[in-house]
Amino acid sequence: MNFKVVFNIIGFLLILNGLFILTGIGFSIYHQSDDILALLISGVGTFLSGFIIWLATRKSEITELGKREGYLIVSLGWIVMSLSGAIPFVIYGAIPNYTDAFFETMSGFTTTGASILTDIEKLPYGLLFWRSFTHWLGGMGIIVLSLAILPLLGIGGMQLFAAEVPGVIKDKIHPRVKETAKRLWGIYVILTAAETLLLIVGGLNFFDAITHSFATMGTGGFSTKNNSIAYFTSPYVQYIFIFFMFIAGMNFTLHYFAFHGNFNFLKTNTEFKYYLGFTIFVSLFIMVIHIPYVDFHWEEGIRQSLFHVVSLTTTTGFVTSDYENWAPFSRMIFFVLLFIGGCAGSTGGGIKLVRHIILFKNSWAELKRLIHPRAVIPIKFNNKAVSSEIISNVQAFFIFYILLFVFSSIIISLLGVEFVTAIGATATCIGNIGPGIGTVGPVSNFSHLPETVKWILSFLMLVGRLELFTVLIIFSPAFWKK
Amino acid sequence: MNFKVVFNIIGFLLILNGLFILTGIGFSIYHQSDDILALLISGVGTFLSGFIIWLATRKSEITELGKREGYLIVSLGWIVMSLSGAIPFVIYGAIPNYTDAFFETMSGFTTTGASILTDIEKLPYGLLFWRSFTHWLGGMGIIVLSLAILPLLGIGGMQLFAAEVPGVIKDKIHPRVKETAKRLWGIYVILTAAETLLLIVGGLNFFDAITHSFATMGTGGFSTKNNSIAYFTSPYVQYIFIFFMFIAGMNFTLHYFAFHGNFNFLKTNTEFKYYLGFTIFVSLFIMVIHIPYVDFHWEEGIRQSLFHVVSLTTTTGFVTSDYENWAPFSRMIFFVLLFIGGCAGSTGGGIKLVRHIILFKNSWAELKRLIHPRAVIPIKFNNKAVSSEIISNVQAFFIFYILLFVFSSIIISLLGVEFVTAIGATATCIGNIGPGIGTVGPVSNFSHLPETVKWILSFLMLVGRLELFTVLIIFSPAFWKK
Repeated sequence: MNFKVVFNIIGFLLILNGLFILTGIGFSIYHQSDDILALLISGVGTFLSGFIIWLATRKSEITELGKREGYLIVSLGWIVMSLSGAIPFVIYGAIPNYTDAFFETMSGFTTTGASILTDIEKLPYGLLFWRSFTHWLGGMGIIVLSLAILPLLGIGGMQLFAAEVPGVIKDKIHPRVKETAKRLWGIYVILTAAETLLLIVGGLNFFDAITHSFATMGTGGFSTKNNSIAYFTSPYVQYIFIFFMFIAGMNFTLHYFAFHGNFNFLKTNTEFKYYLGFTIFVSLFIMVIHIPYVDFHWEEGIRQSLFHVVSLTTTTGFVTSDYENWAPFSRMIFFVLLFIGGCAGSTGGGIKLVRHIILFKNSWAELKRLIHPRAVIPIKFNNKAVSSEIISNVQAFFIFYILLFVFSSIIISLLGVEFVTAIGATATCIGNIGPGIGTVGPVSNFSHLPETVKWILSFLMLVGRLELFTVLIIFSPAFWKK
Repeated sequence: MNFKVVFNIIGFLLILNGLFILTGIGFSIYHQSDDILALLISGVGTFLSGFIIWLATRKSEITELGKREGYLIVSLGWIVMSLSGAIPFVIYGAIPNYTDAFFETMSGFTTTGASILTDIEKLPYGLLFWRSFTHWLGGMGIIVLSLAILPLLGIGGMQLFAAEVPGVIKDKIHPRVKETAKRLWGIYVILTAAETLLLIVGGLNFFDAITHSFATMGTGGFSTKNNSIAYFTSPYVQYIFIFFMFIAGMNFTLHYFAFHGNFNFLKTNTEFKYYLGFTIFVSLFIMVIHIPYVDFHWEEGIRQSLFHVVSLTTTTGFVTSDYENWAPFSRMIFFVLLFIGGCAGSTGGGIKLVRHIILFKNSWAELKRLIHPRAVIPIKFNNKAVSSEIISNVQAFFIFYILLFVFSSIIISLLGVEFVTAIGATATCIGNIGPGIGTVGPVSNFSHLPETVKWILSFLMLVGRLELFTVLIIFSPAFWKK
């Protein structure tokens, strides 16, 4: 393990994070809020510590970067970003407890959106901006990670999609990552700008528009309002959110194609077709049971159903209504939605549709294999047969996901959290969604949970965000053997 | 599909079931209960209908029996046994509603032990005997099925163990099944007799001793007492139950070896070692948290912890105490235990330890594969490498199990059952355990559930009992294609 290169890159990330924290100051000055000093100290402090680490390790050869270093950098990267990103909240006193501040920041960078804040609107503008900005940065990080870096590390069947990004060739890591990253970031910036503009058209001020666009495009879910999206009562604004959440839950490679006028994927991309079909089907289902509950205000019922299905499926986690108080069985359906996840290569977390599709197709094929034991029954995805290695990898991912969910639920329950809340909190944090069920439901927050539970949930957000294997592999003895 | 041979065997099963029902009359006469007529009508009726079906189809060639016919016979077999076995309860009026009676009988034959009876002790002796007898018959059926028939049909990785039964050779189905069945039934009868005797020594009368031995050896869980095993306050009797539940949850092949003085399996059988280790580990864990709750009555705390861990792990479902009122997190732990299952080739249901072991080992190996992509990392079981076909089959089983659990929970929840009860009832029925959590907890029963839910749960018991694939395959189009 070449620790020098690991720390060198971590130092570089801290330098960047210091600069990111400082950006909030612009809003502090404009809105004359009193958090300038807190942001300045944290930003400069983070920048300087990063600079010192970078300086001390700068003689390392970047070319020595191997797979193991890659895993470690990715995991440590998210951790140090959250550790340092939490500081402004503590210094200002908005979140005096560091555990809470870390939870909130990890929730931001992992685009989860689970919050410990009871009164969000009390926060000054600079901190509110920074809080939403972590979503956007995390989302940007995850797109590059999942489409450019993870495929090289062989994680989670992501190889399936990587090859489709134009300009991506199985070559050296450097030009590949750089080229892919540029194209994807461009799209990400354009989409965020478009949403911001459309929200301003809908009557939001620039601050609200940009922070909520950050949270949407990162499929994060932090709002700057206590009532989340319910604050914006305009149906137009809510439909804008629905549209952009759906966009953010798509594979960004498809956006690249769409920007170049190539809409073939509408016909050929298996995951997109399922994504669209699943969203429509589940929304219709929810509408049927929900519309009678809103006294047949048709438009409102349709909008609320669509909103929450898209919000939970894409792992955004915005809410406009307390789904725990919908029809009695809504709890069950929304709980199950916590396990879906958007498309691979999106900013969404969770298991992701592609894995569900492959698992489902393969299990079904297993039945056929029992009848015709000698027949070769290929699993098709995007009109190509999926290799057995990828199927095996996807199955292992699913099983790890369930194991992690079960063990974490047990531990959190042992720490005194009641059954429904324990499984709700665990599911929503591994899946990077935000709201759960029970006392961490859509209108509640995570502040009342014991401190140890908050650390465990922060860890789960990280593991879920980084496709499990990236983090878990570090705990495997084989990782540390020469 | 050769329906003639299918119906021929179904007819034969009905003839047998008619005779089985009649056996209850012995106890009716001895205890002078008034259910003789109900048993007589049902028994003779079942016998005659079976005889007519058998007669009408008897010219079929038994040698034409293929795999498809095998699947159909097994599924239909369990269904017609339950359909006809439910009749005495309805005729006598003990369970006037046929849905309830069918649920109870399916619960018996699948060795689940979930009951809709609120006052069990009101039932006459003949019916009580018949109710417990279904467990024993179901258990006997499942051992032969899982160790002699399913391996030939290629179900659920069971091939792993089949080859170990002495006298089993990959030859024609007839001699193999017959030979294996004889040996296993002998052991089953001997163990049941031993438990009955030891319970009589503990002060039980013959009726209580034999009915509870039936329920233990079949890992069923029906008691003839309203308080289940809590009725027998003697610690000796409870330890006897713990011991025989543990025995019934073992692979019966191991009993065969033990009877022949061969105890090698203690060293070489992977699943047994995990079974023992898991039981001890989880029991110790429960003891630590439970003993303070019984005011440090050490023996009682140890016994209760051990009893419920063994009872749920082996999928028996006997209870001596309301675990829902233990330490607050006990609900979580006992809920998770619903997903374990005993050993393969036992009378227990559920996912089964062997599958958990293979899944766990394979997922762990997947981490190693990420680090060394070209290395071949074999999964060892009983000191032999497990083939990739079996791993794939086990993974598909697990995924189907989870899918079935999730979809059924949603449907049951839609039918008006509250969240915790819905997942508890679904888990305990697929796993063939008996008690769940929520309003179907250890001291409750299933009578209050809507009628449709009872049919769905009956179906789940069947699917879980028959290792999923046996039943699900019938719903696959490939099954019906020529």
